Amino acid sequence: MIPRYANKDVNAINSDVAKLLRWQNAELAVILARVKAGGTTATDYECIKLALETNPPDVEWWKRRDDEVGHDLNAFIDERRRFIPTELQSEFHRDTTSFDTEEPAQARAFLHMCALVEKALDGFNVVCKRQAQTYQFTVMLERTHGQWGKLRSFGSRLLTWIAELNVARSQFLSAASLCKQSRIAGAMGNYGGGLTPELERQALQILGLVPFHGATQIMPRVAYAPLAQSLQLICEVLGKVALDVRLGARSGYPICHEPFGKKQKGSSAMPHKKNTILTEQMTGMARLASGYAAMLVANIPTWEARSIEQSSVERIAWPDLFHITLRMLSVMTRVLHGLAVYPDNMLREIVESRGTYASDEAKNFLALKLSERGIEADVAYRIVQLAAFNVLKPTGFWAEARQATPLELFDTDRLLQQAKNASTPPAYSIQTWIPSARLFPVAELEASNDDVESYNSILSQLFSDQSTLHAWNKLFNPSYLLKEEHFLFEKLLK
Amino acid sequence: MIPRYANKDVNAINSDVAKLLRWQNAELAVILARVKAGGTTATDYECIKLALETNPPDVEWWKRRDDEVGHDLNAFIDERRRFIPTELQSEFHRDTTSFDTEEPAQARAFLHMCALVEKALDGFNVVCKRQAQTYQFTVMLERTHGQWGKLRSFGSRLLTWIAELNVARSQFLSAASLCKQSRIAGAMGNYGGGLTPELERQALQILGLVPFHGATQIMPRVAYAPLAQSLQLICEVLGKVALDVRLGARSGYPICHEPFGKKQKGSSAMPHKKNTILTEQMTGMARLASGYAAMLVANIPTWEARSIEQSSVERIAWPDLFHITLRMLSVMTRVLHGLAVYPDNMLREIVESRGTYASDEAKNFLALKLSERGIEADVAYRIVQLAAFNVLKPTGFWAEARQATPLELFDTDRLLQQAKNASTPPAYSIQTWIPSARLFPVAELEASNDDVESYNSILSQLFSDQSTLHAWNKLFNPSYLLKEEHFLFEKLLK
Amino acid sequence: MIPRYANKDVNAINSDVAKLLRWQNAELAVILARVKAGGTTATDYECIKLALETNPPDVEWWKRRDDEVGHDLNAFIDERRRFIPTELQSEFHRDTTSFDTEEPAQARAFLHMCALVEKALDGFNVVCKRQAQTYQFTVMLERTHGQWGKLRSFGSRLLTWIAELNVARSQFLSAASLCKQSRIAGAMGNYGGGLTPELERQALQILGLVPFHGATQIMPRVAYAPLAQSLQLICEVLGKVALDVRLGARSGYPICHEPFGKKQKGSSAMPHKKNTILTEQMTGMARLASGYAAMLVANIPTWEARSIEQSSVERIAWPDLFHITLRMLSVMTRVLHGLAVYPDNMLREIVESRGTYASDEAKNFLALKLSERGIEADVAYRIVQLAAFNVLKPTGFWAEARQATPLELFDTDRLLQQAKNASTPPAYSIQTWIPSARLFPVAELEASNDDVESYNSILSQLFSDQSTLHAWNKLFNPSYLLKEEHFLFEKLLK
Amino acid sequence: MIPRYANKDVNAINSDVAKLLRWQNAELAVILARVKAGGTTATDYECIKLALETNPPDVEWWKRRDDEVGHDLNAFIDERRRFIPTELQSEFHRDTTSFDTEEPAQARAFLHMCALVEKALDGFNVVCKRQAQTYQFTVMLERTHGQWGKLRSFGSRLLTWIAELNVARSQFLSAASLCKQSRIAGAMGNYGGGLTPELERQALQILGLVPFHGATQIMPRVAYAPLAQSLQLICEVLGKVALDVRLGARSGYPICHEPFGKKQKGSSAMPHKKNTILTEQMTGMARLASGYAAMLVANIPTWEARSIEQSSVERIAWPDLFHITLRMLSVMTRVLHGLAVYPDNMLREIVESRGTYASDEAKNFLALKLSERGIEADVAYRIVQLAAFNVLKPTGFWAEARQATPLELFDTDRLLQQAKNASTPPAYSIQTWIPSARLFPVAELEASNDDVESYNSILSQLFSDQSTLHAWNKLFNPSYLLKEEHFLFEKLLK
Repeated sequence: MIPRYANKDVNAINSDVAKLLRWQNAELAVILARVKAGGTTATDYECIKLALETNPPDVEWWKRRDDEVGHDLNAFIDERRRFIPTELQSEFHRDTTSFDTEEPAQARAFLHMCALVEKALDGFNVVCKRQAQTYQFTVMLERTHGQWGKLRSFGSRLLTWIAELNVARSQFLSAASLCKQSRIAGAMGNYGGGLTPELERQALQILGLVPFHGATQIMPRVAYAPLAQSLQLICEVLGKVALDVRLGARSGYPICHEPFGKKQKGSSAMPHKKNTILTEQMTGMARLASGYAAMLVANIPTWEARSIEQSSVERIAWPDLFHITLRMLSVMTRVLHGLAVYPDNMLREIVESRGTYASDEAKNFLALKLSERGIEADVAYRIVQLAAFNVLKPTGFWAEARQATPLELFDTDRLLQQAKNASTPPAYSIQTWIPSARLFPVAELEASNDDVESYNSILSQLFSDQSTLHAWNKLFNPSYLLKEEHFLFEKLLK
Repeated sequence: MIPRYANKDVNAINSDVAKLLRWQNAELAVILARVKAGGTTATDYECIKLALETNPPDVEWWKRRDDEVGHDLNAFIDERRRFIPTELQSEFHRDTTSFDTEEPAQARAFLHMCALVEKALDGFNVVCKRQAQTYQFTVMLERTHGQWGKLRSFGSRLLTWIAELNVARSQFLSAASLCKQSRIAGAMGNYGGGLTPELERQALQILGLVPFHGATQIMPRVAYAPLAQSLQLICEVLGKVALDVRLGARSGYPICHEPFGKKQKGSSAMPHKKNTILTEQMTGMARLASGYAAMLVANIPTWEARSIEQSSVERIAWPDLFHITLRMLSVMTRVLHGLAVYPDNMLREIVESRGTYASDEAKNFLALKLSERGIEADVAYRIVQLAAFNVLKPTGFWAEARQATPLELFDTDRLLQQAKNASTPPAYSIQTWIPSARLFPVAELEASNDDVESYNSILSQLFSDQSTLHAWNKLFNPSYLLKEEHFLFEKLLK
Repeated sequence: MIPRYANKDVNAINSDVAKLLRWQNAELAVILARVKAGGTTATDYECIKLALETNPPDVEWWKRRDDEVGHDLNAFIDERRRFIPTELQSEFHRDTTSFDTEEPAQARAFLHMCALVEKALDGFNVVCKRQAQTYQFTVMLERTHGQWGKLRSFGSRLLTWIAELNVARSQFLSAASLCKQSRIAGAMGNYGGGLTPELERQALQILGLVPFHGATQIMPRVAYAPLAQSLQLICEVLGKVALDVRLGARSGYPICHEPFGKKQKGSSAMPHKKNTILTEQMTGMARLASGYAAMLVANIPTWEARSIEQSSVERIAWPDLFHITLRMLSVMTRVLHGLAVYPDNMLREIVESRGTYASDEAKNFLALKLSERGIEADVAYRIVQLAAFNVLKPTGFWAEARQATPLELFDTDRLLQQAKNASTPPAYSIQTWIPSARLFPVAELEASNDDVESYNSILSQLFSDQSTLHAWNKLFNPSYLLKEEHFLFEKLLK
Repeated sequence: MIPRYANKDVNAINSDVAKLLRWQNAELAVILARVKAGGTTATDYECIKLALETNPPDVEWWKRRDDEVGHDLNAFIDERRRFIPTELQSEFHRDTTSFDTEEPAQARAFLHMCALVEKALDGFNVVCKRQAQTYQFTVMLERTHGQWGKLRSFGSRLLTWIAELNVARSQFLSAASLCKQSRIAGAMGNYGGGLTPELERQALQILGLVPFHGATQIMPRVAYAPLAQSLQLICEVLGKVALDVRLGARSGYPICHEPFGKKQKGSSAMPHKKNTILTEQMTGMARLASGYAAMLVANIPTWEARSIEQSSVERIAWPDLFHITLRMLSVMTRVLHGLAVYPDNMLREIVESRGTYASDEAKNFLALKLSERGIEADVAYRIVQLAAFNVLKPTGFWAEARQATPLELFDTDRLLQQAKNASTPPAYSIQTWIPSARLFPVAELEASNDDVESYNSILSQLFSDQSTLHAWNKLFNPSYLLKEEHFLFEKLLK
């Protein structure tokens, strides 16, 4: 991973020296297990252990040898055996094959890296929950299809992020636990020579691992694939959270914005820009994660008891996938922690929606009233739809501007000048428009004059009753619309 | 492909009967080529041709035979030979292997489907160019990073779509022409028996194809991969166009919207919704296209002179990729044709941006003036940045609302009520703010009181000169800002 | 899915009529839950239920309506309400939005399709276990890197397939259980109108589902992604099994072969061919599965409370992924059930390997003996390596043929004729070569004459002891080499 | 890229200092172009150029600034301006935005890296062509579906690799030329301020580039996608070549092998192993390339005039894709250069195929003869199929061994011992089997006794004619079977 995005702990875990020490631990665990099985003496074990620990691996020597023998584990054996008394050399890597050493070591590396991810997930959750609580009553207009829909609290939107990440998190934890499985079962996976199932069990236990029965020379990569898949899920979910932040930060009525430093510059050309570079980066990073995960899952098919296609992929894609996941978690934790929230713009959006934020309840309210009068439920839908189109129709200069098609740039100048001077049009709302029975036909919807007249007549009648109007107005209050939201906070913040 | 998205021409080309006829044509072409080479008589050819054309393939018979012999081309030979006189049977599929028949037939199918795509691309281009012309002088505020940036005409945005699709189109045309290559070179691709390079050339020519030299039993799939890749490019570009339309249609200041039918319903719950379902679907379809292309490119590795992994993939992914591409072209042509455009909202956005739409030119203007006074260019940047932050700062009720954190839903009700009644705040612009030297420090940017004071003092001095102010104001006119855009129209609409 | 590969049960589950009935069940479940909550009367519920069940959905009517309103769920409501008395119409789809209906219905579809997969997995396992048992003592030469390695029983190879598929299976079962979660929480997922968490719980329970808390308008797609991922895992593992079968069937010493029908034809050109078309197809199908899974996982990012990109992808990729998975399971069950196994060729391979099948044990044996004499362990490795190269070196005509480079085709003719007449060379084995101390230097390995002389001298000395020779010979017996294998049968066949 | 696989030239091109110098060149090109347009003086240009070249970029200073302003190009401007006289500072990066600098610089980087690939492709081609020539008359048994098929020369197999790579190469060259296009068109791509199409053209020309008209703030990523796609094609084709080498090296009758070092060790456990680690690695690397290409193609959709998702992906995936491509080219050139070829084993395979290597010609020969006698062409097929099954049927001990199912390991010991002592069975060939009319029914094929009898009777009659037998025997000669192959050498080695 390039330094810009690299995680230093992941780098340390994947360093050559750390790998050689993990291999050494795996070799020692086999010898120790053999001691327990009576195949070697404790003295020999201690002697080997001391020799090796006194002489830490020489990475450069090892690399040179690898160039020669073209086999990194064989080179490691040669490097290590240099320090073992000749008569004990055959004990080191006795009866085993490379992957009896490499697999358990790899499992240890996975577990270390997974611990980093788990911690970062916890950190993200703490911040996300805190922010959700802070904004439990900060009301906003939620969107579906990019369009203004209905109210929710900003806090409750964060709950959906928490819920979504929870799914990915639990997939991850289960996948990480699969990585505790490993194997020390010989070149074909069916033991042989001095290896036995019991020796395998003992040696793995020493390393904090458990046996996977039925492996070949290597662990089947299907056992590691879920880890890659679950890391991708985490990244995809974080990408979705980032996407929501970016969408919320779009100019117009921005409702939130990722942190922007006091010395930061958004653009080299346009000084006013506050670009959402962090959250946009998350989309790119999720793309990377998706690619790495695909590479790793593609490692499942291998020839017979093994071939080595997966090796180059794993040397690159595993560390890089962890780097990216941790980077995303760290950035998004920072983004949520420092999130700028604009409740004023949330309110402006609600006002600008002209009562349509309660169109669902309005329609249901009318449908019930109409059905009591034997009128089809669909009429309620059509009334509210038409009212919404009515109140959102531009008026005055802005109606003219909608039709304008300038034919040269000076027309455009003039039009912009007029716009700068134009007055803000009145903001009608369906809350009052419908009870006042002022529906009129619009070109965009199929409704005849007669239809519309009949709608208005129904509405006049309906809202002549003051208690109906009172009940109607209640529909437009957050306290009514959000009355069940607390349940989600209780469920998800516990 | 499911009926909902299927293209009927693609279905016809990929029908069983059309395939069997293509195979028959390939077989006949080989016999005819052999006539030319003197290996068979013209009479025998005519006799076989007549026999086959008089008796069109019986698809059901063929399928039953395929179940028996487990080889669809062998079953086809059996089906067809039924109608050939016994003494001529050995002429049919003589010296050839299955893929001497199937490859040229497949090439013909590719060429047919590519012709459909080319036509649809032309149709899209016509509509896109017409709309670009229509909106050449309709000014809008273009966005980068979702943030308001600088002006452009809406027409010029369409030009970027045209330019982008042009790249994909030219990749596609070049990939399609690769599919004119095929092979009739025997079971191992090195001729043998009665096959010769000259016979191959002749037979392919009869089919409108040219030889690919160095194939194995089959065409190397790398020759077809570019077609899949280029179809993906088309779909990705259409997906980008659709994305821009969706983004433009977001509630707030929507600048355009995909067509919405007069009887259409946006949501079963919220009657006011006009959802961008077509353009959102395009994102999903680009995802499908990406998947199909990946499957097809993955067909390149095959064992030695062939193995048959690619067959199942190609039976599914080729037609489906064409279905999706044609569906996307047809939907997006419809969307652009019926696009609702809202110049009024474009103007509202420009006004709401409070002069920042010219912050680039403003900064350059100041930088030049300052450098004349020996002041670092960066100061110009900092002045415009601060001014932008100043004019966009909320005031009055809205400033209070920004800080509000309600603690229960009744607080929220009250706040919304206040918002509904709040007056629209004055809309300051950097166009006037900067010359009037009213900069003030803000918490969001690092600039000390002293800095700001010095900025104001510079500005006062600078703008005391009326000609400076005059030149400054010119920067904010579309006719100045867009003076070079016509060049792009000339280049891309020709 | 094209008919060639389609599963009829999956087709039925995804038919229009089945979908509309699932939607109807979801709508009825909400009404029934409302009855329990006291919001509607049982009589009204029964009346609606009877009306709908008496009049099954009219798919054609529904499609026409969908064309008109551009919203399939709205069209469904219109279609169904036709049969509901006007005064009860508002009860149908009351307070809910499309995905309060579609999500639970989709969950039901998932569960049905998952049940098919689970059953097919069980069927595969039964056959695989039976075959493993049959071949528990049928010895073969296992390969790593395509090269002959060490012995195993053919049965134990099947155990590795079982173990590998077990991982995928358990991922699948856990992912399938995630699909029991659903939501009926209104247009923004925060309830509202008449919806409550309790109503959601009740309605879902009626449908055999449980609530997912914190969804938006739709279930977060991360909850379904693991299902796609796990189906891919199943397909990848089956692809690996198929790959092993294909590799085993390669001409030379084929050890097994997929079933070949009595009337089957392998090639239209070459009558002797028995092609591994089924197992090769599996590789293609795994490619398809990988593509579909990628499309579905890419559905996770969506805008805010929803956008509809995922819809087109899911309409296509979910059924097709299930079709492919079930096809693969069915084909591979058939392949394993009818697998032709060739123990004679397995034995021929072992013999042809010239004792190298025990080179691991041979090396360990020597290493121990040498270390007792204070000789480095690595010498044992070098001795066995050289011996292997010695015994595999071609002799006689074959040694000449290795160097031959014919310069025209008639040379080639002659060479082939000689080969046809050449005698089979003696097959030396390291089992006897090493004790007889006949090592000689070869160009391919770095070992000086002095080295080799010293090796021979060590060996002479070592094997002068008869008990050493006796112990050595034991190493080459299957009963010694496979003595721990039974453990795997006990673990994996239980 | 990890050091193990990194290409040092790609590393140099992508180093920070090289990037900053490319940016500097792009900035200088704009100033120089402005000089030509009369917007700046040549003296000012020279002064700035001198100042910058005298003071090379300070990478550490730049990095620290980037941390502060969160914008790497802005940090670069600040770093560079330090050395420019205050009054000329506004000339540096005047009127331009970041990507007016970064895009042309990126194009230059692409062109450099593409030149490396082109050179490596040439190197590979030279070696591949030389080897093809060397083995023009070295005959082997080509396989389809892993099964022995027909003869070809080993050289002609290499021709298919050349032909396949040629396709990828030509896609690559065309994609690389697309990267010569760039843009200097301002923040929204429509010029503005002091930028003009003419200035863009001039500045790009200075850099060896040409304008792309219709870009936004950035080049549309569809212009770079073909490069990623074509690099993937190269890698996939190399992966296919590697696959053929691995398959050819499988134990049994290995026909070739990747180079194996004189000190190399194939396995830590099994000294006899010569593993195909290089060619297997190629499969993994093609997997990586496929992932990187997918990431890069996914960069096409971006928001409006730009968002920055693509940046992180490109920082990683472009260099890594080039590293992998170059690594694969270098390894495969080495593999082909040092390829061990075993003509002896090729001959053994042909002999072992027992005449079936000419089954195609044999079938065609008989079909013609039979059709002259009014017998259906299909009978010829059935005769050759049955003969092939006859001659390949095991006999003697080996026939018994095929049926053996040992019930314990000692049975297995015994069986292996018998096999070691068993005599080699006679190798019948269809070349003699068919003329001698010795066909007999086999369980594996549907053919009644009567059928077989009639086949034998036909054959007896047919081959009673000596000239028929003579013609028949000719079919089995390489000089007959490969008589057209020279054409491919002429076409592909020219």
